[in-house]
Amino acid sequence: MSRSTQQPRARRLPRDVRERQILDAAVQVFSQHGFHAASMDEVADVAGVSKPMVYTYLGSKEDLFSECIRREAKRLIDAVTEGVSTDDELAPDMLLWLGLRSFFRYVGGNRDSWTVLHRQALSVGGTFADEISEMRTRSIDLVASVVVSTGTKQGIGEQAEKSGAGLAAALVGAAESLADWWIDHPDVEEGTLASWLMNLVWLGFGDLVQGAVWRPR
Amino acid sequence: MSRSTQQPRARRLPRDVRERQILDAAVQVFSQHGFHAASMDEVADVAGVSKPMVYTYLGSKEDLFSECIRREAKRLIDAVTEGVSTDDELAPDMLLWLGLRSFFRYVGGNRDSWTVLHRQALSVGGTFADEISEMRTRSIDLVASVVVSTGTKQGIGEQAEKSGAGLAAALVGAAESLADWWIDHPDVEEGTLASWLMNLVWLGFGDLVQGAVWRPR
Repeated sequence: MSRSTQQPRARRLPRDVRERQILDAAVQVFSQHGFHAASMDEVADVAGVSKPMVYTYLGSKEDLFSECIRREAKRLIDAVTEGVSTDDELAPDMLLWLGLRSFFRYVGGNRDSWTVLHRQALSVGGTFADEISEMRTRSIDLVASVVVSTGTKQGIGEQAEKSGAGLAAALVGAAESLADWWIDHPDVEEGTLASWLMNLVWLGFGDLVQGAVWRPR
Repeated sequence: MSRSTQQPRARRLPRDVRERQILDAAVQVFSQHGFHAASMDEVADVAGVSKPMVYTYLGSKEDLFSECIRREAKRLIDAVTEGVSTDDELAPDMLLWLGLRSFFRYVGGNRDSWTVLHRQALSVGGTFADEISEMRTRSIDLVASVVVSTGTKQGIGEQAEKSGAGLAAALVGAAESLADWWIDHPDVEEGTLASWLMNLVWLGFGDLVQGAVWRPR
C-alpha cells in the first residue's frame, strides 16, 4: 500500500495533538461506561485513530485511565486557581465566591471530566483511588493556604493556622459532595449551586472572620 | 475426637454472638490492612474461631466485607440519629450541634469502623463503592429532612424545600471530608473538630435562617 492511499489525517498531526484527541475521547468513553465496561475500540473510534495507536501513545487501559485522571485533575485545579487569581486585593468573600463559581463552572462545562474524576475513579478503586486522594490533598492544601492568609490579613492568623486545614478539608468536601449531588440533579443551574454553597459557608466564614464563635449552651 | 476434647467456648455461643465477634474482628483487620491484603486467617484468629466457621457464618471475603459495610453504616447512622432525637423542641443550632457531636464522637470512638466505611470501601471500589454511595444518599436524605422541617418552622419553608437537599449534600460532604482529614491528623480532639464544623456551617445556616442572603458585588 502506497503512502498516498493511507488516510492523510491519521499521519499528519503532531503527537501532542493526537494524544489530546485520544484523551478527550477516553474521558468521554470512561465517563459513559465506567472503567471496566469501557472498550479501547470505542476510545479509538471516538478519537478517530487506530487501536494500536492508542496503545502506542498512551499505553494500557490502566495507563490511559490514570492519564485521564491526572490531566482532568490538573485542568480542574488550574481552572479554580485561575478563577481566583484575577486580583490580589479581592475582599475575602469575593475570593471565595470566585473560587466556588470557577469550580462549579468547570464541573458544569466538563461533566464527563468530573464524572471520571469523582465517580468513576472512586468506583474502580485501587491506585486510582490513591491518585484521587492525592488530588484532594493538593486541593485542600491550596484552600488552606488561602484561608490562613485571609485569616492573617483579618488579624486572626493564629486561629486560622490552627483550624485552617480542617476548615479547608470541610469546604473541599462540601463542594465535591454538592457537585456529586448535581450529577443526579442536573436541572439545577450552575450559579444556583455556587450561591447555595456560598450562602452556607460564607455567612459562616464571614462571622468567623469577625472573630465570632458559636458555643453550645 | 470426642466432643469433650473440643474447645468448649467455640461451641457454646449462640450464632448471633459469634457473628458479632467475627464482624468485630473483620472490621479491625480490614481497617488495618485494607480489603485485598486482609486475610481470612487473621479474621478467624482475631475472632478466636476457626476459618471454616468464618465462611459458614458470613460467606466469602467479599460477603464479609459487604456485611461489615452494612453493619458499620447502620451503626453510624443510628448513632447520629440517636444523638439528635433526645428532644423534639431543640433549637435548630443545638440540633445541628448534637448531630455533629454524635458524628465525630462515633468516628472518634470507632476509627476502625470509619476507616473501613470510608477509606477502605472506596479504595476497593466496585459494588462496595455502590453501597457507600447508597449510605451517603440515606444520610443526605436524613439531613435534608431536618433542614426542610427546620426551615419550615422558621418560616422559610419554600427556600428550604428548594435548597435543602443540596445544602444537606454539602453538609454531609463537609463532615465526611473533615473526618477523613482527621485520620491523618489524629491529635486534634473530637470536640474541636465538631466545633470547627459547627462554626463554619452554623454561622452560615444561622444567618440563612434569618433570611440573610449573600450576593456577589
